[in-house]
Amino acid sequence: MNRMTSLAVSVCALALLAPTLAQAQLFTLTKEQLIEYTAQNPFERFPDGRPKVPDALIERARGMSAEEVWAVLPGKGFRNQYEDGFQILHPGKKLVGRAFTVQFMPVRPDIDSVLNSQAQAKGLGRLNNQAAIDMLQPGDVLVVDLFGKTDGGTIVGDNLFYYIMKTTKTGGLVVDGSIRDLEGISAMDMPAYFRHAHPSAIANVMLTGINIPVRIGNVTVMPGDLVLGDHEGVYFIPPQLVTQVLDQADVTHIHDEWTRKKFDEGKYKSSEIYGSPRDPALKKEYEDYLKKRLEEIRKK
Amino acid sequence: MNRMTSLAVSVCALALLAPTLAQAQLFTLTKEQLIEYTAQNPFERFPDGRPKVPDALIERARGMSAEEVWAVLPGKGFRNQYEDGFQILHPGKKLVGRAFTVQFMPVRPDIDSVLNSQAQAKGLGRLNNQAAIDMLQPGDVLVVDLFGKTDGGTIVGDNLFYYIMKTTKTGGLVVDGSIRDLEGISAMDMPAYFRHAHPSAIANVMLTGINIPVRIGNVTVMPGDLVLGDHEGVYFIPPQLVTQVLDQADVTHIHDEWTRKKFDEGKYKSSEIYGSPRDPALKKEYEDYLKKRLEEIRKK
Amino acid sequence: MNRMTSLAVSVCALALLAPTLAQAQLFTLTKEQLIEYTAQNPFERFPDGRPKVPDALIERARGMSAEEVWAVLPGKGFRNQYEDGFQILHPGKKLVGRAFTVQFMPVRPDIDSVLNSQAQAKGLGRLNNQAAIDMLQPGDVLVVDLFGKTDGGTIVGDNLFYYIMKTTKTGGLVVDGSIRDLEGISAMDMPAYFRHAHPSAIANVMLTGINIPVRIGNVTVMPGDLVLGDHEGVYFIPPQLVTQVLDQADVTHIHDEWTRKKFDEGKYKSSEIYGSPRDPALKKEYEDYLKKRLEEIRKK
Amino acid sequence: MNRMTSLAVSVCALALLAPTLAQAQLFTLTKEQLIEYTAQNPFERFPDGRPKVPDALIERARGMSAEEVWAVLPGKGFRNQYEDGFQILHPGKKLVGRAFTVQFMPVRPDIDSVLNSQAQAKGLGRLNNQAAIDMLQPGDVLVVDLFGKTDGGTIVGDNLFYYIMKTTKTGGLVVDGSIRDLEGISAMDMPAYFRHAHPSAIANVMLTGINIPVRIGNVTVMPGDLVLGDHEGVYFIPPQLVTQVLDQADVTHIHDEWTRKKFDEGKYKSSEIYGSPRDPALKKEYEDYLKKRLEEIRKK
Amino acid sequence: MNRMTSLAVSVCALALLAPTLAQAQLFTLTKEQLIEYTAQNPFERFPDGRPKVPDALIERARGMSAEEVWAVLPGKGFRNQYEDGFQILHPGKKLVGRAFTVQFMPVRPDIDSVLNSQAQAKGLGRLNNQAAIDMLQPGDVLVVDLFGKTDGGTIVGDNLFYYIMKTTKTGGLVVDGSIRDLEGISAMDMPAYFRHAHPSAIANVMLTGINIPVRIGNVTVMPGDLVLGDHEGVYFIPPQLVTQVLDQADVTHIHDEWTRKKFDEGKYKSSEIYGSPRDPALKKEYEDYLKKRLEEIRKK
Amino acid sequence: MNRMTSLAVSVCALALLAPTLAQAQLFTLTKEQLIEYTAQNPFERFPDGRPKVPDALIERARGMSAEEVWAVLPGKGFRNQYEDGFQILHPGKKLVGRAFTVQFMPVRPDIDSVLNSQAQAKGLGRLNNQAAIDMLQPGDVLVVDLFGKTDGGTIVGDNLFYYIMKTTKTGGLVVDGSIRDLEGISAMDMPAYFRHAHPSAIANVMLTGINIPVRIGNVTVMPGDLVLGDHEGVYFIPPQLVTQVLDQADVTHIHDEWTRKKFDEGKYKSSEIYGSPRDPALKKEYEDYLKKRLEEIRKK
Repeated sequence: MNRMTSLAVSVCALALLAPTLAQAQLFTLTKEQLIEYTAQNPFERFPDGRPKVPDALIERARGMSAEEVWAVLPGKGFRNQYEDGFQILHPGKKLVGRAFTVQFMPVRPDIDSVLNSQAQAKGLGRLNNQAAIDMLQPGDVLVVDLFGKTDGGTIVGDNLFYYIMKTTKTGGLVVDGSIRDLEGISAMDMPAYFRHAHPSAIANVMLTGINIPVRIGNVTVMPGDLVLGDHEGVYFIPPQLVTQVLDQADVTHIHDEWTRKKFDEGKYKSSEIYGSPRDPALKKEYEDYLKKRLEEIRKK
Repeated sequence: MNRMTSLAVSVCALALLAPTLAQAQLFTLTKEQLIEYTAQNPFERFPDGRPKVPDALIERARGMSAEEVWAVLPGKGFRNQYEDGFQILHPGKKLVGRAFTVQFMPVRPDIDSVLNSQAQAKGLGRLNNQAAIDMLQPGDVLVVDLFGKTDGGTIVGDNLFYYIMKTTKTGGLVVDGSIRDLEGISAMDMPAYFRHAHPSAIANVMLTGINIPVRIGNVTVMPGDLVLGDHEGVYFIPPQLVTQVLDQADVTHIHDEWTRKKFDEGKYKSSEIYGSPRDPALKKEYEDYLKKRLEEIRKK
Repeated sequence: MNRMTSLAVSVCALALLAPTLAQAQLFTLTKEQLIEYTAQNPFERFPDGRPKVPDALIERARGMSAEEVWAVLPGKGFRNQYEDGFQILHPGKKLVGRAFTVQFMPVRPDIDSVLNSQAQAKGLGRLNNQAAIDMLQPGDVLVVDLFGKTDGGTIVGDNLFYYIMKTTKTGGLVVDGSIRDLEGISAMDMPAYFRHAHPSAIANVMLTGINIPVRIGNVTVMPGDLVLGDHEGVYFIPPQLVTQVLDQADVTHIHDEWTRKKFDEGKYKSSEIYGSPRDPALKKEYEDYLKKRLEEIRKK
Repeated sequence: MNRMTSLAVSVCALALLAPTLAQAQLFTLTKEQLIEYTAQNPFERFPDGRPKVPDALIERARGMSAEEVWAVLPGKGFRNQYEDGFQILHPGKKLVGRAFTVQFMPVRPDIDSVLNSQAQAKGLGRLNNQAAIDMLQPGDVLVVDLFGKTDGGTIVGDNLFYYIMKTTKTGGLVVDGSIRDLEGISAMDMPAYFRHAHPSAIANVMLTGINIPVRIGNVTVMPGDLVLGDHEGVYFIPPQLVTQVLDQADVTHIHDEWTRKKFDEGKYKSSEIYGSPRDPALKKEYEDYLKKRLEEIRKK
Repeated sequence: MNRMTSLAVSVCALALLAPTLAQAQLFTLTKEQLIEYTAQNPFERFPDGRPKVPDALIERARGMSAEEVWAVLPGKGFRNQYEDGFQILHPGKKLVGRAFTVQFMPVRPDIDSVLNSQAQAKGLGRLNNQAAIDMLQPGDVLVVDLFGKTDGGTIVGDNLFYYIMKTTKTGGLVVDGSIRDLEGISAMDMPAYFRHAHPSAIANVMLTGINIPVRIGNVTVMPGDLVLGDHEGVYFIPPQLVTQVLDQADVTHIHDEWTRKKFDEGKYKSSEIYGSPRDPALKKEYEDYLKKRLEEIRKK
Repeated sequence: MNRMTSLAVSVCALALLAPTLAQAQLFTLTKEQLIEYTAQNPFERFPDGRPKVPDALIERARGMSAEEVWAVLPGKGFRNQYEDGFQILHPGKKLVGRAFTVQFMPVRPDIDSVLNSQAQAKGLGRLNNQAAIDMLQPGDVLVVDLFGKTDGGTIVGDNLFYYIMKTTKTGGLVVDGSIRDLEGISAMDMPAYFRHAHPSAIANVMLTGINIPVRIGNVTVMPGDLVLGDHEGVYFIPPQLVTQVLDQADVTHIHDEWTRKKFDEGKYKSSEIYGSPRDPALKKEYEDYLKKRLEEIRKK
């Protein structure tokens, strides 16, 4: 069996597995609930209801920065979608993909034993980080709430990091917690945002939810959000706003282009050109430039 | 109508209200789920399934300290039930009661509007801190996950603090977040544990769960846990371990009593008496004392 | 000479001294500038132009809390007038008075020598904390920017603290820096807000301004602001808003009074009464109560 | 046997025990070394060479504050004898006594087993906190380096705290680490300075030295130093400087007395009186007052 | 018009603009004051009085490190001229230039409206970061006091960063605050030192001074100071000490050269060679080497 | 004299010097004590008793990561041998070598003068960092306890760093304190782990021990421990466990090799392969692979 075929098969298997797994978690959203909470999603969905921002938009998003999202979201009432304070594995490599969310909580034996009984009753193995990792799809970013934990809060080491890189086709990882094997991971070409690196293995926690809303710092992340990480931090963009953010970013890029071109001419003070030109002739010049460049970009 | 009657009535009203409210939250446990996860609870339950540690045991717990719980729980596999780092309103006043849990998450407009539509469709008002507070029962401790938020993370000011004090019959409050009106609250005689005090009102958050498992620092708190706060921090004790912890605390109290009595005699080095006496005669003396005192206590 | 007379005399002496001192500082506001920047001040002024909130309003302000100021100022565009994170000397004792501001900067010899040459040329002694302290008036609160400095950032020890208490008639002290002699100071009955206590004397700084705008944390404090400190933190209220804040606080007090009265009746859920009653009859009852009580208060 | 007799006996026993214990520690100072390092000590010594600041000076020291020590020590080249950042059990109760130092280090099994083999070879029990505590004398302050450890860094709980209080005759405790049973300890009348309170028992450390130089924050503490704790922090005063510090403190007290008396007269600006009076007549008045008061004090 | 001409023109325009702008700021130094405070400056001055360390010395300074400045300044009484704790944009690229200082304070509307009225009365636009940036000269380093602010404390994004780079001829930026567009800025080749990166735009502050003394951490920075940033932090060197620091750095470089040459020989312990050779023959060898190399350097 | 000869000579000189130096330190271990505390060392020793992990094992250790040590040591009871939170000079360059330990404490003049008198009486110069550095051997890693000190806690600048690099043959440096000349040091190819960089010279401390047990964060480091630093932090491995750790790391490397090979095939979910394969055929395949590869490695 060649690889593509086998992947297609395993995706199907996972689609079947997902609802079963859900019944062995503490918190779950049914497919119906997930659709209700993300009803404004304009795109297709995965079989479990998770919004699927199209691949083409993911590619376009690689040209954006956090500032360009910031320019749109707060004005739409989304003031809590940005988080920073991470260590960034490869600061020069943009993180873009669809949020696949996982939540852990501190272990307590009574709850843990119920969760594992349910899993066994359904013929599943022990619920752990790998149960979630094995459900990842190409284009996913694994978003993990490990409540900032260092020792024992290590979502993956280099072997599973490698697996995620292969499975998500270099999607990425955001963990409010830690990773281990930083040495090995540093040599791998997938973006990752984490709080700490620590040599311990994941421990003293229980998996309490997959593809439910999770909190990463000051952000409520929904499954299917478009995750965008740059040099500064990570943005979680609701699907219904993705197109608008991207269109606005095009304008910003052109504005930057024109602004620097004018600065290069050396004839102007910054305030004559930026934020926007005061002189009507310059203003006209900019508007013509913007129109022309937008047309060029949209043709592609 | 006199007060007791009216309270009895409103309790009934609330019992009816609870499942309705649940359908307007992001995370919910059905009554069946709550019973399954707390299946080891040896006591009665509230109508919504929440374990109800008896009032008599709550009274006995007022004589315990965090150390006495620590002496039992880790040995039973419960290593994550203690949290500190709080500001304590009245350090000399013990906090004891049943956990009533509430969770907030950072607001995002798409989710928030679904939650409020659901609430309105069911004839409920806006979902907020008061919706939860109005469900409190005598003996409850309000346990709130506001993810450490300061500005806008103020669960109550002095008016609602007063209401909680009246309704819970001086139960108490634990908030991983803040309070406001510290000046007014300082004059009220209910125990409270909080991270900060700030003059802002609660804002920029959405209520996402009532009586679900919540995380307070490094603890997974279940609705119905026995909450115990002393000079140092707060313990969340699973119902199935309450009796055992209390019995062991009796032994510890008697051991302390005897140890200090011997220290007062001034004839011994600390290591001859404490942790346990080495000398067989002293050991016998202690065991007789323990037996006698336990009998006296148990008679009460 | 009796004390009152001598004080009157020394006030005059200080009024004469002030402009002279000003010329030996790095930053100064002329009387004209100070009046221009505080042009909305509705009250009298000190000889140097500093607004003088009347004594009667200072007395009324003793009944207010930070929350009651917060309820008014942000709505007027004043979002940066509150600062917390202080150690509070006497948490139960309200701080109220007129801001007398002092600024220090890290010493550098070239600047320092110029400042002191200027001072000597004018027959003044070395410019230091006492030069400022000797200018304090009854009702003043000394507000000091020592940029959070601990070692060497001690504005006063117990002797000068005692002097301030006597001179300001128990005004108070707010220092973004430290104090020393905490033991001695603890026994004195004047409110104080400080970052640290440290046994060193003030050192390695130079006095750079008296009664100029200073920054205390996130607040720009103007000379003559009404300073209000409670259990939580400190508010700096512009003179033009003092009356409005106080009037609104009266309404809040009455609202609290009525709300708790209703809670005491035990007939209502919190949301039926608070923030405001939903039931028209209750609403009417509250409005009548408010009107009656306001009249009683205003009569005093 | 009455108590005083028995105590005299046990002191002798401990004096014999000390050198034996020393041979089972990682770091030791022989009596000769201790004497050499504290050669400037002008007072008697304990049998093990530790300087013994006389009881009368300890009593005099109860009237001093940290500032009064600071006024002398840095000028003598002792710039690192003060540490703060502690939680203070009873801020109003002065800590005074002779330093009895104990050092712990993180456990490692190879070292720990050597230490315990040595102890067993000499017929001693397991080396632990109680081995040190049982050597305390009246007037001692237990000074413990637990390197700021919280969980497992708890030098004592309430039972051993009680024992120390009885044995040292209310000497005291300074621990760069933590305590447990804060509730029980709060009710006991002995001064204590600690970094944290935590319910765990001491664990994962090994006792590495008794009455050796230890580091508490930025201070090198020698056995026999006079420990002085007030509202702010803790001073460790070398024996050779104790008399000088105390004499200077007498002068400071009289200076404070006179300064406030003059401030009370209300005739002077602070700079006319404090630091020292400029006017020759006032200067003379102060000097006469100082002389008279010093004589009165010295007579006592 | 070619670029050089236009720049010369705009410089003239700015020289005219500067005093006008000054009148619309909260804090100002007149040209006379600035000259007085920097009277020891041995070099030319800008039209506004700011010292102008010559270009040749700026070039020489590119070979220095923070340690070489530290070796001179504290001994001259300048103990507070160094600040660290910054994020460094290009750690391998030395920052050197003349300080152009700007100060912001938290906005308060009463002051802000006065400032803007004054600006409008003089025909100036809104006072903001660009007003200051448009005054920069080749060789300047923009030094900004934004009191450590993160959200809203972003002095520039990538467009204005680009403008500064062009205008100052790769001078540089030091901000006690933040920047935005870190992604775009990372690709630009100008040194920058900042506390945080954040996607927000500058907000909630008011410009209160240009080319006045500002505080950056523990340093008082004067306009015209030579700014030197290396891998560790930033030094602000008063003009009168620049030559001396540079001459001493030459000696240090030669000393390092010789020391490592000797270490490379492998015949000596470090203490035989470093700090200075003990052996008279080695000492002579070093002194001859130093003399010869200094001559070579000075010839250049 | 050629270099190798001279080094041999100076090594002998140092061997003679060591015991003399020891007598001028506050804490010392005699050769006999050091041997006793490290009795499980299976390797040769230096003349002063310090364990000498063979060069061949040091070379093998360059292939290990912190995680591979973590996999062995806690299971042997060594739970406190890892420390992180350092700045890492060259994250891609592994640190490996034998621990040479040095301890400093805050200066106090009485102790310091005794130490220096002793040194002078023995014909030694002032005790300082260079006295220790001159004793380093090829393969050593200098491990320094400077209690986290920043200003004045700089163990070396670039000259002495260069000397250490030459002398230890690129061993390395771990300092719980700081370094200076980060600019110069960055250009040198020796691994270093430090808390801060600061331009000050080492000051206000006294050298209190060489090759004694020291505490680095939460680790007790013994002279002769194998020091291993990677991208995350530093491990201090007792000599008796080195071989076992290395053997286990070989197995881990092969396991990683095989795991990724299988992941590359794209036929498996992560949990079918990792931690260990569930399928008996796969398990057999892995075991054969492991055996074959181990043989290949062991042959080398």
